[in-house]
Parts: sequence; structure tokens; C-alpha cells
Amino acid sequence: MQQITMMLAVSALLSGTIAAIAQAPSWTVPSESQRCPSKWGTGDERGSGNHMKPQAVLNAIKLIKTGEVIELGQQLGGGMPFFGTRRFDIHLKRTFMNAGTNERGSNEEMVLSEIGQVGTQLDGFAHQSHRNSHYNCFKTEEISTRSGFTKLGVQNVGAFITRGVLIDVAGFKGVEMLGDSYEITVADIEGALKKQETSLQPGDAVIINTGWGKLYGKDNARFVKSCPGIGVKAAEWLVSKDPILLGSDNWPVEVAPNPDPQISLPVHQIALVVNGVHLLEQLKLDELAAKQVYEFAFMMQPLKIQGATGSTVAPIAVR
Amino acid sequence: MQQITMMLAVSALLSGTIAAIAQAPSWTVPSESQRCPSKWGTGDERGSGNHMKPQAVLNAIKLIKTGEVIELGQQLGGGMPFFGTRRFDIHLKRTFMNAGTNERGSNEEMVLSEIGQVGTQLDGFAHQSHRNSHYNCFKTEEISTRSGFTKLGVQNVGAFITRGVLIDVAGFKGVEMLGDSYEITVADIEGALKKQETSLQPGDAVIINTGWGKLYGKDNARFVKSCPGIGVKAAEWLVSKDPILLGSDNWPVEVAPNPDPQISLPVHQIALVVNGVHLLEQLKLDELAAKQVYEFAFMMQPLKIQGATGSTVAPIAVR
Amino acid sequence: MQQITMMLAVSALLSGTIAAIAQAPSWTVPSESQRCPSKWGTGDERGSGNHMKPQAVLNAIKLIKTGEVIELGQQLGGGMPFFGTRRFDIHLKRTFMNAGTNERGSNEEMVLSEIGQVGTQLDGFAHQSHRNSHYNCFKTEEISTRSGFTKLGVQNVGAFITRGVLIDVAGFKGVEMLGDSYEITVADIEGALKKQETSLQPGDAVIINTGWGKLYGKDNARFVKSCPGIGVKAAEWLVSKDPILLGSDNWPVEVAPNPDPQISLPVHQIALVVNGVHLLEQLKLDELAAKQVYEFAFMMQPLKIQGATGSTVAPIAVR
Amino acid sequence: MQQITMMLAVSALLSGTIAAIAQAPSWTVPSESQRCPSKWGTGDERGSGNHMKPQAVLNAIKLIKTGEVIELGQQLGGGMPFFGTRRFDIHLKRTFMNAGTNERGSNEEMVLSEIGQVGTQLDGFAHQSHRNSHYNCFKTEEISTRSGFTKLGVQNVGAFITRGVLIDVAGFKGVEMLGDSYEITVADIEGALKKQETSLQPGDAVIINTGWGKLYGKDNARFVKSCPGIGVKAAEWLVSKDPILLGSDNWPVEVAPNPDPQISLPVHQIALVVNGVHLLEQLKLDELAAKQVYEFAFMMQPLKIQGATGSTVAPIAVR
Repeated sequence: MQQITMMLAVSALLSGTIAAIAQAPSWTVPSESQRCPSKWGTGDERGSGNHMKPQAVLNAIKLIKTGEVIELGQQLGGGMPFFGTRRFDIHLKRTFMNAGTNERGSNEEMVLSEIGQVGTQLDGFAHQSHRNSHYNCFKTEEISTRSGFTKLGVQNVGAFITRGVLIDVAGFKGVEMLGDSYEITVADIEGALKKQETSLQPGDAVIINTGWGKLYGKDNARFVKSCPGIGVKAAEWLVSKDPILLGSDNWPVEVAPNPDPQISLPVHQIALVVNGVHLLEQLKLDELAAKQVYEFAFMMQPLKIQGATGSTVAPIAVR
Repeated sequence: MQQITMMLAVSALLSGTIAAIAQAPSWTVPSESQRCPSKWGTGDERGSGNHMKPQAVLNAIKLIKTGEVIELGQQLGGGMPFFGTRRFDIHLKRTFMNAGTNERGSNEEMVLSEIGQVGTQLDGFAHQSHRNSHYNCFKTEEISTRSGFTKLGVQNVGAFITRGVLIDVAGFKGVEMLGDSYEITVADIEGALKKQETSLQPGDAVIINTGWGKLYGKDNARFVKSCPGIGVKAAEWLVSKDPILLGSDNWPVEVAPNPDPQISLPVHQIALVVNGVHLLEQLKLDELAAKQVYEFAFMMQPLKIQGATGSTVAPIAVR
Repeated sequence: MQQITMMLAVSALLSGTIAAIAQAPSWTVPSESQRCPSKWGTGDERGSGNHMKPQAVLNAIKLIKTGEVIELGQQLGGGMPFFGTRRFDIHLKRTFMNAGTNERGSNEEMVLSEIGQVGTQLDGFAHQSHRNSHYNCFKTEEISTRSGFTKLGVQNVGAFITRGVLIDVAGFKGVEMLGDSYEITVADIEGALKKQETSLQPGDAVIINTGWGKLYGKDNARFVKSCPGIGVKAAEWLVSKDPILLGSDNWPVEVAPNPDPQISLPVHQIALVVNGVHLLEQLKLDELAAKQVYEFAFMMQPLKIQGATGSTVAPIAVR
Repeated sequence: MQQITMMLAVSALLSGTIAAIAQAPSWTVPSESQRCPSKWGTGDERGSGNHMKPQAVLNAIKLIKTGEVIELGQQLGGGMPFFGTRRFDIHLKRTFMNAGTNERGSNEEMVLSEIGQVGTQLDGFAHQSHRNSHYNCFKTEEISTRSGFTKLGVQNVGAFITRGVLIDVAGFKGVEMLGDSYEITVADIEGALKKQETSLQPGDAVIINTGWGKLYGKDNARFVKSCPGIGVKAAEWLVSKDPILLGSDNWPVEVAPNPDPQISLPVHQIALVVNGVHLLEQLKLDELAAKQVYEFAFMMQPLKIQGATGSTVAPIAVR
């Protein structure tokens, strides 16, 4: 017994030491008591979507001078990249000739897809959790069913019309495209805003150009393998500006993989879980950046899919 | 032999007479030479979508005074009506716990649906034909593949921001809901516009309230069985005003079945095939009509599904 | 305080009494220590499928005299009944004309279905659990992934060729069809076997005719609403005879709802979870019963779907 | 005018000469009058399936000596090869805990797949045509609907129990696997049969081992890119022996591409269209060949999918 006790004691000592020497993760999720209820109130499901008010619409349209519309959505179909095993399969049905002297032919297609998580997509708050805890501490097991979520569904989002700001980090760094897993820092963000003479306001749709979108539909394997994007610090800085969403032309908005190999897509939790701020992925930003449009009316209409984790979207910038 | 010849002769005579007495259809599709090329030009795929120009945007936002957004899209999910055997099936996948100290849980769903033809939906020009001939005389067999159309796909539509006009025919007739297969006439349209003191302009999104939308999600069987809507004459009158689209709160925009039992949904051909004018079905108009909003900024963002016949949408009215 | 204390005490007393008077469930799942490991051994995934040995095949084919094949599988397609929200949707693709002077046309269809749980179907052991514990105490959370189970998948089943026995309970009771929620008892089973002069042997495919299959495709609403079938006692009796499977012409093999309103489909747990005996549902038994075929060679080939909970099948009786 | 006439004449002469020099296709589809009605009679939908009679069953089971079952079906799931854009996607639903004191957990999966054309698959007669003409001259446009075929559907096939013959061509040639696009000749077939001392009888399930199946799940890209298999001559020779089906371990049974670059998979038309003989693809033959089982009881149970072009199957050899 003494021998075993000795061995256990030594073993524990060694484990403790090894643990102490091992890197602590660079970021941890705040506790539930720290983050719930959210600033929008107990039971709130809309998070940053609460910024949508008539005044936001008026402020946005003030920015429209010429009526030019710049499409920010990628096309859905063959050639698009997929993260993991996702699909966007279209099956065009056989043509149906209706009865009637007007010989009316009808066509339609069956679409099989993770429609909330493909192409240019808005992430809702059911999409991510910390353990079983979502935004505003809704619990996965309490709100999930086989056909969707009973809380936090994307049908709650509604249309966004708000001031949009492009932070062209690639432009600021003088490159077409940031490096394969370059972490955008607070200094990058501040530097780009300063160079652009743009400032952030609460309720903004904050959109970051990494240039990574150039690979979309051209080199999909590389596009999904990794990407440049905001890191934890930049995300926390941006979230503190109280945006309605953070968006980018890469697939997760944030840098992937995270420089800290112990943590997996932490910005998804910072935005969606901790702060209830939407993420908007896989935007098409080449035209916006080339035209140096840094401030614009941002408009987006997520599909009202009951209980869904997100929605593919076709947003626009108008100026 | 003589007897048989006699019988055949008499039979032929009778058939001819019967045919002559039988009703000729009340409407026929114009010939190809009459309708092609369309007014937008040979090879044009966008039809009325060509109305989308910067000036249309500017004209539309002039109508925005308070910034109030009225959602015109129905929700997608359980309880929605389907025409025919269409589906909107959502399968929420099992939660995936990602590796990493931040214990990030991920959720997403598989959606199986005729996503171009469910809920509030925009019909594109691949959706309908006369025999094998579509808008601008594209031929079905030449442009169809198993995974979509190579011409006329809904990805060509793009965002619409334009003046929207509500023609509240139910309101004009002093009812909540028009009759189960009531045909809206030119007199109804003109009367409602006059009462509302609204006029139509080229490029308008013309939206007709029948009140039928009240049945959506409440009595789906009745909703899809038949419906009130514009007839051939009203459709031709409206199309002559050069709108960007015709929309309604029923499932086909037009009256169904058509009062002429020989023809099947002729307005679909008048709009989509003959004139290249989009149709927008299953709108949610109760709020717009209740608030008596007859003129507004109309905004819609169809999904950019390559080669699709249409897109479900979540459009809005802004004032 | 005294008053509240008094009230709480009385309340507690009453609750205790009410609880004592309330019915205890008529059956409970044996504990893990009682049922695991199964008689087939620790880590076994095949359960009763272990009965498939060459001798079983030889014994079965000895029963084949004329070579007559009686199909026991229902058709899959329109008109079939579904339990819950299950589907069997077929989408025939557009015909594809291959290049080549031989002008070869190709056709195929996309099928969207819970293919393990529709039509005549074999239940595997991943399909059911007690809390999180399956057959042989495999744990749901340890063996489930988004694309299937890593243990207990139906691909482990393999072909069955074995002696089959029909227990025609409806015939024994002198009716075409047993009552809507009639519970088949041990006496019914024994009586039918005696009348038929049939005995059970280990490894048998034991098939019970309730007559309920007559409603399949004819009155699907009634077919799925409830059904006659074996109850707990009959199931335990049958399982003690060591069959390879229990099958029936209804949708759950057992009586539904169970006469004890507190328990939900207990025979599913008795067979699949506790004893590792397969269930075979929605058989077509009218011909077998009409021809009074009580003993036959039973043959079934489940699809080898990796990690699936079951498989639709097209089994046969041969004599 | 004279000059143009001259030019046209010269041009015509040249074209004629060029055409005459160009290779005529090595095989053409017999005319409808030559092949319809089929030998099974006008309106017959079953083709070679008509060989299934009680005597075939008796003859087959005579071959069973030990009761050994050899599985001939490949598994369905991740890692399987697909020809073209076909899928076999499994989505395991979230576990559902049923109400009840017995805490019954339920699991099932949604499968999205061209289930008639994946894995080990039986081709039915709706699958292929010459222009619009199928087996027994059924016309595609007359028998096709959006949800399946009204004639020739695989639900007509029924179970097969018949004598099976393995023609091990790879074994005959002394190789593990024939060349990437090696055409199996009549001499190969006859040589192998002679070496094996096997003969063919009407109604046989004739199965050819190319060894190509070794690539299944191992090198799927190569597996589907091309393959060795029977050519036109061998196919015609085999069909003349009146088999119930021709099967192989490659994906089309025949050599692909065909040595004549002008024709596309002609054996599909020889078998399915001209002669109404089923094809059975992607068999797993390694065990059968290794054990040198040349004659056996062949058993197969296609799913009874109404109106489908084929069915995935899990057939067996029994001896």
C-alpha cells in the first residue's frame, strides 16, 4: 500500500508538472454567468439583429447617391466550394406538359443542400455552441428537434438594411490576397480604417476583404483548406464596436486554422455564442474592393427557414 | 361496302358539325414570330429584369420616409402549403463537437426542397414554356440539363430595388378575401387604383392583394385547391404597363382554375413566356394592406442558383 | 411559518399516497448488468444474425419441394404508408442522350427516403435503445456519427436463409384481420401453432399474420394509427425460442399502442435492445396465409448500408 | 451561277468521298421490326426475368451441398465509387427519445441516392434506350413520369433463384486483374469455360470475373475511369445462351470505353434494349474466384421500387 501510494503521489506530481509546462489555451469561452443574459435581455433570440430599426434604414439610404448596386453574393451551383461534405445538388425534373389547349410546359428542380451553410451564407445563433450552450444560454438539448431549432432559428433574423463598411485589409497590406493562414490583427484593422478614412458605428455591417474570395470557384481545394482572417483579438475589438454582423470573403470570417492549435474557430464562439453577433461568410468582394467602396448601404434578406441554423443569401451594397 | 361508306360519311359530317359548335379556346399563345425576339433583344435572358437600373433604385428610395420595413415573405417550414407534391423537408443533423479546448458544438441542417417553387417564390423564365418554346424562343431541349438550365436561369435576375405598388383588389371590393376562383378584371384593377389614387409606372413591382394569403398555413388544402386572381384581360392590361413583375398573395398570381376550362394558367405564359415578365407568388400582404401602403420601395434578392427555374425569396416593402 | 409547514407536510403525505396508488409500469427494461454482455459475447454486433450458419441453409432448403416462390415484400412507391414524417420520394431525372452513333438514351432516378425504415423493413440494432444503451450495451454517443453508426450497422447482417414459420393468428381466430389494437397473447401463439401442427426451432424466422397488412396501400391512415400485434408476454415467449427474427404484417410487429399507456413499443426493446433479435415489419402475408404455408425456406437480403439502422427488404418464402 | 454550281458539285464530291473513307460504326442497333415484339411476347415487361420458374429454383438448390453462403454484394457508404455525379449520402437523424417510462431512444437515417444505380446494382429495362425506344419497343415519352416509369419498372423483376456460373476470365488469363480497357472476346469466354469445365444453360446468371473489382473502394478514380469487360461479340455470344442476366465486377459489365470510339456502351443496348437481358454490375467476386466456385445457386432480391430503372442489391452465391 505504501509503495502504491508513493507511486500515485509521484505520478500526480509529474502530471501536474507536465500540465503546468504545457501551453494553456490562448483563449477560453467566458462562463455562462459572464455572458448570460445577453445585453439584449433574457430570452432574446435576435442578438445583433436588434440593431435593425427604422433609423438604421434611413441612415443607410442616405449613403445612396447614384443607385449603383454591387452584388456581394456568390453563385450557387457546380463549381462552388464546400466545407466538409456539404452539397448543393440540383436535379431538374422532367418537363411536365399540362393539359389544355395552350400546351403549357412546366419545369422545376429539386435542390438537396445544407442551404443554411453554403455559398454566401449568414450564420444564425443555433449554428454554434459552447458545449451545449448557445447565445443567451439556450441549451441545445432543449431547443433542438429533428426538423430544426425551436429557438434561435434564422427566421427571426429578418431583412437587414444598414450602413455597411468595407475594411480592405488586403488593400491596406498592398496585396491581392493575404497569406493562406494570415491572422488579421487589430493594427491591421485600425490601419486600414485610417487609410480609408472610415470609422465604425454601432449597427454597421462590418465586412473585411482578405482577397481570399479570389479562389472561390477557381481553386476550391485551397479555398477550404485554410484561410486568412481575423483572429481573437481583432474579433473582440470589432465586436466591441457593436456591429450588426462581421463578414468576409473567406469561409469562416476568422483565420483558419487558428494560430493556437488548441482552439477551434474561436471567433465563431466570440461572435455567435458569446455576443450574439451574426457572421456572414463567403462574400464576393472583388468588385467592392476594386471600386474602393468603403461605405455603402448594405442590404440582405435571409430566407425565413423556421428553426434553421443559417441561410444562404444574396446581399448587395448600394451607393 | 356501301353501307360502311355511308356510315363513315355521316359520321364525318356529324364530327365536323360538332367540332364547329364546340367552344374555341378564349386565348391562344401568340406565335413565335409575333413574340420573338422580345423587346429586350435577341438572346436576352433577363426580360423585365432589365428594368433594374440605378435610376430605379434612386426613384425607389425617394419613397422611403420613416424607414419602416414590412416583411412580405412567408416563413418556410412545417405548416406551409405545397402545390402538387413539392416538399420543404429539413433534417437537422446530429450535433458535432469539434476538437479543441473551446468545446465548440456545430449544428446544421439538410434541406430537401423545390427551393425555386416553394413559399414566397419568384418565377424565372425557364419555369414555363409553350410546347418547347420559352421566353425569347429559347428551346427546352437546347437549354435543359439534368442539373439545370444553361439559359434563363434565375442567377441572371439579381437584386430588385424599385417602386412597388399594391393594388388592393380585396379592399376595393370591401372584402377580406375574394371568392375561391374569382377572376380579377381590368375594371377591378382600374377601380382599385383610382380609389387608392395610385398610378402605375414602367418598372414597377405590381402587387395585387386578393386576401387569399390569409389561408396560408391555416387552411392549406383550400389555399392550393383554387384561388382568386387576375385573368387574361387583367394580365394583358397590367403587362402593357411594363412592370418588372406581377405579384400576389395566392399561389399562381392568376385565377385558378381559369374560367375557360380549356386553358391552363394562361397568365403564366402571358407573363413568363410571351412578355418576359416575372411572377412573384405567395406573398404575405396582410400587413401592407392593413396599413394601406400603396406605394413603397420594393426590395427582393433572389438566390443566385445557377440554371434554376426560380427562387424562394424574402422580399420587403420599405417606406 | 407553522401554517406553511403544516401545508407542506399534508401535501407531501398526499403526494406520497397518490404516487403509491398510481400504476407502476407493467414492464421495465432489464438493467445493463442483466443483459450485457449478450449471450453472443462481449462486443458482438450481430445478435440473432449469428444463427446464420451453413447448417441453417441446408435445413431450410430441405423444405423446398416444388420451387414455388412467394414474395413477402411490399412495393415501394406512391401509395405506401409512412409512419411519422418518413418519405419515399422518387425523382426521375431527365433522359440523357449519350454521344455515339448508337444513340443510347439513359435514365435514372434520385431516391430520397429513410430507406432503412420504409416498406417491408428489417430493424437493426442501432435503431433502438434504452436511454443511451443499445444491444450489448453499446452507447449511442460512442457509436453515432452524422453519417451513420460505427457499430451495429445493418451491413453486418448479411443474407438470411433459414427455416421460416408462419403463425397465422388471424386464421386461428377465424378472422381476416385482428382488431385495431388487439394484443396477441401466448395462448394465441400456442393455439395457432397447435392448430397448424407447427413447432418452433432455434434460428427460425418467426412470422406472425395479423391480417393488418390488408390495409397497406388501401387505408394507410388506419394502418399507421394503431395495430394488432404481439404484446410483452408473447414477445418474451417467442424470444425464448431463440428465433433469428420476429416479423409481422403490421408496422411495429407488436401491438400499438401498448395496452399499458405508460410504455412505448416495449417489444422493440425486448427484441432489439435486450435480446438482439431482429424485427421484420410490414410483410406482405396474404398469399402465404391464404395458401396455408406454415413452414418454408425463408430468404432475405438486407442492403449492406454501412452504419444504417435498418434496411428495406424484399424477402421471400420458398417451398 | 455556273461557278457556284461548279463549287457545290466539287464540294459534294469531296464530302461523299470523305464520308466513304470515314469508318462506319462497328455495330448498330437492330431496327424495331427486327427486335419487337421480343421473344417473350408483345407487351412483355420482364424479359429474361421470365426464366424464373419453380424448376429453376429446384435446379439451383440441387447445387447446394454445404450451405456455404458467399456474399457478392459490395457495401454501400463512404468510400464507394460513383459513376458520374451519383451519390449515396446518409444523414443520421438526431436521436428521438420517445415518451414512456421505458425511455426508448429511436434512430433512423435519411438516404439520398440514385439507389437503382449505385453499388452492386441490377439494371432494369427502363434504364436504357435506343433513341426513345426501350426493350420491347416501349417508348420513353409514353412511359416516363416525374416519379418513375409506368412500364418496365424494377418492381416487375422479383426474386431470382437460379443456377449461377462464374466465368473467371482473369483466372483464365493468369492475372489478378485484366487490363484497364481490355475487351473480353468469345475465345476468352470459351477458353475459360473449357478450363473450368463449366457449361452454360438457359436461365443461368452468367457472371464474369475481370478482377477489376479489386479497385472498388481502393482506387475509385481508376475504377470508374475505364474498365475491362465483354465486347460486342462476346456479349452477343453470351446472350445467345439465353441467360437470365450478365454480371461482372466492373461498373458496366462491358469494356469501357468501347474499342470503337463511335459507339457508347453498346452491350447495354444489346442486353437491356434489344434482348431484354438484365445486367448486374459492381459485383464483389474476389471470394468466389479465389474459392474457384464456378457453379452455384445464385440468389438476388431487387427492391420493389415502383417504376425504377434498377435496384441496388446484395446477391449471394450458395453452394
